[in-house]
Amino acid sequence: MLKVAIVGGSGYTGLELLRLLARHPEVRVTAITSRRYEGREVTEVFPSLQPYRGLAFTAPEPAALAGQAEFFFTAVPHQAAMKVVPGLLAAGGRVVDLSADFRLRDRQTYEAWYQAHEAPELLDEAVYGLPEVYGPRIAAARLVANPGCYPTSALLPLVPLLREGLVAPEGLVIDSKSGASGAGRGASLATAFCEVNEAFRAYKVGEHRHTPEIEQELSAAAGRPVVVNFTPHLVPVSRGIFTTIYADLARPGTGTAEILACLEAFHRPHPFVTVLPEGTLPNVLHVRGGNACHIGARVDPRTGRVILLSVIDNLVKGAAGQAIQNLNLMAGLDPASGLDITGLCP
Amino acid sequence: MLKVAIVGGSGYTGLELLRLLARHPEVRVTAITSRRYEGREVTEVFPSLQPYRGLAFTAPEPAALAGQAEFFFTAVPHQAAMKVVPGLLAAGGRVVDLSADFRLRDRQTYEAWYQAHEAPELLDEAVYGLPEVYGPRIAAARLVANPGCYPTSALLPLVPLLREGLVAPEGLVIDSKSGASGAGRGASLATAFCEVNEAFRAYKVGEHRHTPEIEQELSAAAGRPVVVNFTPHLVPVSRGIFTTIYADLARPGTGTAEILACLEAFHRPHPFVTVLPEGTLPNVLHVRGGNACHIGARVDPRTGRVILLSVIDNLVKGAAGQAIQNLNLMAGLDPASGLDITGLCP
Amino acid sequence: MLKVAIVGGSGYTGLELLRLLARHPEVRVTAITSRRYEGREVTEVFPSLQPYRGLAFTAPEPAALAGQAEFFFTAVPHQAAMKVVPGLLAAGGRVVDLSADFRLRDRQTYEAWYQAHEAPELLDEAVYGLPEVYGPRIAAARLVANPGCYPTSALLPLVPLLREGLVAPEGLVIDSKSGASGAGRGASLATAFCEVNEAFRAYKVGEHRHTPEIEQELSAAAGRPVVVNFTPHLVPVSRGIFTTIYADLARPGTGTAEILACLEAFHRPHPFVTVLPEGTLPNVLHVRGGNACHIGARVDPRTGRVILLSVIDNLVKGAAGQAIQNLNLMAGLDPASGLDITGLCP
Amino acid sequence: MLKVAIVGGSGYTGLELLRLLARHPEVRVTAITSRRYEGREVTEVFPSLQPYRGLAFTAPEPAALAGQAEFFFTAVPHQAAMKVVPGLLAAGGRVVDLSADFRLRDRQTYEAWYQAHEAPELLDEAVYGLPEVYGPRIAAARLVANPGCYPTSALLPLVPLLREGLVAPEGLVIDSKSGASGAGRGASLATAFCEVNEAFRAYKVGEHRHTPEIEQELSAAAGRPVVVNFTPHLVPVSRGIFTTIYADLARPGTGTAEILACLEAFHRPHPFVTVLPEGTLPNVLHVRGGNACHIGARVDPRTGRVILLSVIDNLVKGAAGQAIQNLNLMAGLDPASGLDITGLCP
Repeated sequence: MLKVAIVGGSGYTGLELLRLLARHPEVRVTAITSRRYEGREVTEVFPSLQPYRGLAFTAPEPAALAGQAEFFFTAVPHQAAMKVVPGLLAAGGRVVDLSADFRLRDRQTYEAWYQAHEAPELLDEAVYGLPEVYGPRIAAARLVANPGCYPTSALLPLVPLLREGLVAPEGLVIDSKSGASGAGRGASLATAFCEVNEAFRAYKVGEHRHTPEIEQELSAAAGRPVVVNFTPHLVPVSRGIFTTIYADLARPGTGTAEILACLEAFHRPHPFVTVLPEGTLPNVLHVRGGNACHIGARVDPRTGRVILLSVIDNLVKGAAGQAIQNLNLMAGLDPASGLDITGLCP
Repeated sequence: MLKVAIVGGSGYTGLELLRLLARHPEVRVTAITSRRYEGREVTEVFPSLQPYRGLAFTAPEPAALAGQAEFFFTAVPHQAAMKVVPGLLAAGGRVVDLSADFRLRDRQTYEAWYQAHEAPELLDEAVYGLPEVYGPRIAAARLVANPGCYPTSALLPLVPLLREGLVAPEGLVIDSKSGASGAGRGASLATAFCEVNEAFRAYKVGEHRHTPEIEQELSAAAGRPVVVNFTPHLVPVSRGIFTTIYADLARPGTGTAEILACLEAFHRPHPFVTVLPEGTLPNVLHVRGGNACHIGARVDPRTGRVILLSVIDNLVKGAAGQAIQNLNLMAGLDPASGLDITGLCP
Repeated sequence: MLKVAIVGGSGYTGLELLRLLARHPEVRVTAITSRRYEGREVTEVFPSLQPYRGLAFTAPEPAALAGQAEFFFTAVPHQAAMKVVPGLLAAGGRVVDLSADFRLRDRQTYEAWYQAHEAPELLDEAVYGLPEVYGPRIAAARLVANPGCYPTSALLPLVPLLREGLVAPEGLVIDSKSGASGAGRGASLATAFCEVNEAFRAYKVGEHRHTPEIEQELSAAAGRPVVVNFTPHLVPVSRGIFTTIYADLARPGTGTAEILACLEAFHRPHPFVTVLPEGTLPNVLHVRGGNACHIGARVDPRTGRVILLSVIDNLVKGAAGQAIQNLNLMAGLDPASGLDITGLCP
Repeated sequence: MLKVAIVGGSGYTGLELLRLLARHPEVRVTAITSRRYEGREVTEVFPSLQPYRGLAFTAPEPAALAGQAEFFFTAVPHQAAMKVVPGLLAAGGRVVDLSADFRLRDRQTYEAWYQAHEAPELLDEAVYGLPEVYGPRIAAARLVANPGCYPTSALLPLVPLLREGLVAPEGLVIDSKSGASGAGRGASLATAFCEVNEAFRAYKVGEHRHTPEIEQELSAAAGRPVVVNFTPHLVPVSRGIFTTIYADLARPGTGTAEILACLEAFHRPHPFVTVLPEGTLPNVLHVRGGNACHIGARVDPRTGRVILLSVIDNLVKGAAGQAIQNLNLMAGLDPASGLDITGLCP
C-alpha cells in the first residue's frame, strides 16, 4: 500500500480526493491537513465520507509531513503551493500539485498572469500532468503539475487535431461553461445559491488565468505560438465543464468523419477518453462523478469550421481524478486503479 | 380597450402572454384557444393566473375568431401558423405571429430549412418584429413576424456594430445558451427534469433553424451576405438566453469603449435595451420575467476580437413580451405599456 | 404620491421592495439606506432594477431620515430594528418593520427566544401585520410588525379553522419547506450554491424563532394556549415556502368539503388568498414573484386528521409584498395597489 | 462470478443497477431486457455506462431468460412483475423484484391499493427485502421483494423505536420529500424540467401506495396495527429522499440521547446505516449516489414528541443498491460487495 498525504484538504478537491481514494486498492491516506479544521474529524466536516471515521485533519507541519507519506497531493492555492512543494521534494517525497504554480514552463508568463515565482528552479523539472499527452514523462517525474480543469477540457480534443494539422492554429475560439464547484468551497456572495441558481453569466472575459496554460500546450501541439479567445461561463450545476471549440479547418473539404477518426486514433489507448460517434453530442451529466472525458465533433461546411465539444467533471478529470491518474502512473500502477467509476446519471 | 385574442394558448408562450396582458391597461383578452384544453378554465390549467378566473379555453374556430378581436397573437407551431394567419388578415384582423412562418423574406430559404410554404404571398408584406430595428414599419404593419428568441439575443448587439462597420461580417461565432422553456411546454424524455437538471449540452450544432433568420438580419445590417456559426446549448434554468458572440474587429485598434459607445448610441432610444458599463457583464438572472435585454462587450486586443454578451428572457423579450411590444407599436400605444416589469431576482 | 423610505435596503427584502414599488402608482421611494453600499447606485448593486437609475444608497442617518418620508420600511435585522424604529415614530413617521422585534406581544417570550428588548414600550402598540386577520387595526397603526414568512404560511390556513373550532388546537404539526432566499443575501458556506443545490435538509428543529410567533397567533385564534411542532427545511429553490400542516379534526366526521368551505368563507374577501378546489394541491411555482397565498386541504378519514397545504413566495407575501399590503392599508389605498402581479411560472 | 440478468432495464433503476454492478467483483451481467430498446447498445441509451460497451438490450423472452442467469433483478412495473416472476422461479432462478407486487403479505390489502393479484401463492414465500430487519430470511429466500423508497426511509428510524417501545404507535406523521427520479424515466408534463424546477408540491396526499407497506412493517415492529399519515412531496433534485417523522414519546421524559442510543444499538451492525450524533442533522446531499442511510433525531420536550429525520438516495438504498445488498445476502457474499461507494458531494 502506498502511503499518501493530502496537503490542504478542506476544499472540494480534498473532499473529492478522499472520496476517490476510499476505493483505491493500493493507497492508504495517512494524513490530511487543514489549518481551518485542525483536530476535527473528517466525517464531521464532510458527512458523506463515513468510511474515514477516525481520521482527523492535522495542521500542515512541513517537518512532520515528510515522514508521513511517500506521495503528496498538494491542494493549496497557487502561491501557497510554491512554498510547500520544495520541502516535500527535498525530503524525498513525490508530489502531484493541484495548483497552478508549476504548470507554466515559462517563468515570465507565470509572473505576468500570477505573481513572482519563489521556486522557479522547479519549473523545468515539473511535468504537465495530462496523462494522454505526457504519460511516460509523468511516470518518471518527482513533481507533476496537475492541469487546470478548463485546459483539460480544451486540450483533449484540440491537441490531436493540431498535431495532425487538421485544424488551423489561428483564430481558435474556446467557449467554456463550468459548474459552480469550480469556484471552490468558500463563502462568497457571488457563489451563493440565490446568485447562481437560475443564473448564467460569463466572467473574466479575456483575462482568465487558464488562458496561458491552454496556449502553452496548444503551441506545443501546433509547433508554433497559438493565441486563443477563451471565455469561461458559470452554469447552475454543481459539477461539470462543457467546452465548445470553434476551429478553422486546415483543409476546406475535411469532413466530420475525418476529424473523429483522428481523435479516435489518438485517444484509443486512453482509458478515460471516449470519442462519441458521429451524430452524438456530449453532456456533462454523462460524466458526473467519474474520470471520463467525452468528445464530440461536427464540421460545418458552410463556414469551413469544425465545432468540437468536450465534457469532463471539473472535480474529477479536471482535478482529483486526474491527480490520482497521475499518481498511478508515477507509482507504476494500473492507470485506472481506484478510478473505475461511471458517471452518476441522473 | 383593445380586444385581443390568443390563438394557440396552451403552451408557455400563451401562459406568458396572459401573465403580461393581465396588467396591460389598454388590452382586454377576449379569447384564448386550445384544442387540447377546450372548455377548461385557464386557472385550472395555469393556477398562477388567478386574475383570469372565468376565462376558458375555446376551440380555434377561424370563422368565430375573426369577430372576437382586432388583434391576434398566433402562438401555434410553424406550418400551423401559415394556415390560420391568412384568414385572420382577410377578416380585417392584425396579427403578431410568434411562429417562424413569416420571419424569412426569402421563400427558398424558408423551404430549405423548414418545408413548403402555403402562404408565400404574405412573405413580402410581413414585417420582422424586432422593434429596435423595424419600429416604424411595425407600426404600420398588418402582419408582424415576431423574431425567434436566439435571433433577438444575437441581433441586438450585432446589428449596430455591423451597420457602423466596427466589426467584420466574416467569421462570426454565435454561441448561445438557453433555458429549458425554449423547448416548449410538452412531455418528452429530452426535457424531463432528471435529464436537464445538472446537465449541460449542445444541440442541433450547425443545423438550428434560427440560423437563416440570424443571417438574414445580419446580412441586411452589413449590406452583404453574412454566414455564421451558431451553436445553441441547453442550460438547466427555466428561463433565459445568454449569447456569447466572437467578432473580428474591422479595424485592429478599436477599444471596448468605442464598441460600447456605438451600442449605446444605437440603443439609447430603446426602452428595453441596457448597454452595461465597461467592466460589467450581463446575467440572465437580471432579466428574468422582464422584457429587458442587457448587453456587455469587451475587446480582446491579443486576438483582435470583440466578445459581445447579451441576455434576455426567452419567454419575454424572446417571445411574449416582444409580441406585446409589437402590439403596442401597431396600436399606437406607449411601447412599454403593460411591460413595466423588472426582472425577478433572485 | 406617498414618500416612502427603505431603511436597510441591501438585502433581498430591500431588492424586493424596490422591485414591487417600481410599479406602485401611489408611492415614490425617496431614500434607501445601506451602510455597506453607501454612495453606490442601486442599479450597480442590483442590475435588475434599471428603472431606479439615478437612485443611490445613503448611510442611515436617523435625523435625516425622518424628513425624507412619511412611511418607512425598516428591513434591518432584529435587535437593530428596535434601535431605529422609536426615532422614526417620534419624528412623526409611520413604520412597517420587517424584523421580528415587534411581532411578539409578550416581552418575556421575546426575551426568551431573542435577547433583551430595548423598546418594550412599543410592544403593546405594534400591530401584527397579517392583513387577513388584523386589517382594521393595521389601517390605524403607527407601527406594524410585518409577520415572519413561515408564520404567514401557517396562519392563513390555520386561523380560520381554529376560530371555527373545526380542528383541535392540540398536537399540531407544522412541517415547512423554504427556498434559500429565506436565509438572506449574504456570504456563508451553508448557503453556497454547491451546499444547497441537490441538497435537502431540516434545520433548527424544535428551536426556530418563528415558533413563538406562530403559537401567539394560533393561541389568539383558538382562545387558549397552543403549542406546536414546527420544523423548517431548506429546499433548493430561490423562492417559496410550502407548509404542510397535520391537525386533528375536532369532530371525527368532518370532511374535506367542510374544511374548504370554512377556509373559503374566511378568505373570500381577501384579494391575495386563493382556496383551491377539492383535489387540487398548491405548488410554490404558482405563486413565485406574486403576493398570492394558495391553500389546499384534504381530510384523511383513516387517521381523523386534516392535512393543510399552503404556499407563498417568502420574499413577497412572506416579506416585501405583505409589507406593501400593510402600507396600502395604513395609507388608505386599495390593498392591492402595486401588487397586481401574477406568479412567474415557469 | 454470479450470472445476473436485469429484466426491464430501460428505466433509472436499470441504469442504476448497471452503474453499481459495473464495479461488483463477484457479478457478471449476462442480459438486460427492454422491449423499447431491443437491439440497441446500452451505451447508446445510457452514455454514462461506457464500461458496458458491447452489451445490448434484448427482448424479454421468458424461456431464454431462465438459462441466462442464476439471479434476476425484475425492474418492471407492478402488475407486470407478477407475470414474469413465477416463470423465473419455476426455472430455478432466484429473484429480487423491485416492483410492489410481492411486498404486501396480505392479498386483500394489495388488492385494495393496487389491483387483482395473479400470483398470490407467492405472497407467503416472498421476503420483504429490508436487510436491516430481515437479513437471515433474505439470505435463504428464492424471492425477495425489494422495499419501496419511501418505506425504506421511514422504517429504518422507526422500527427500532417501536420495537423497544420508546415511541407510541399511534398518531405517527411521516412527511417525506423525494427527488424527481422517484417518478421514473419517462416523458410527462408533470415531470418536465420547467414544471419541477423552482417548484415544490405534495402529491397523492393520504392515498400514496407506499402507505400500506409502511403500515405493514410498522405494525410488525409494534406488535399491533399501526395507521399513519404519510405525505409525499416532490423536491427539485434528481435524487434523494428526506423523511421527517413526528412520533409521540411513549414515556414523557425520554431524551434525545436515549432515542439515539436505541437507534445506534440497533444499527451498529448495519454497514450502510449511520446514526448521526446529537446536534447533527442529515442532508440528502451526503448520501447521493451511495447506499447509505443517515438518521438524526431530536426530542422536543415542549410537545413530548421526537422528530426523526432520515435520508437515502431513492435510486440506491431506495432501489438498486438495496437490491444488490439483497443479492449479496442471497448469494452469501459480503453484504457491502460492490456497494463501497461514498456519496457524491457536491
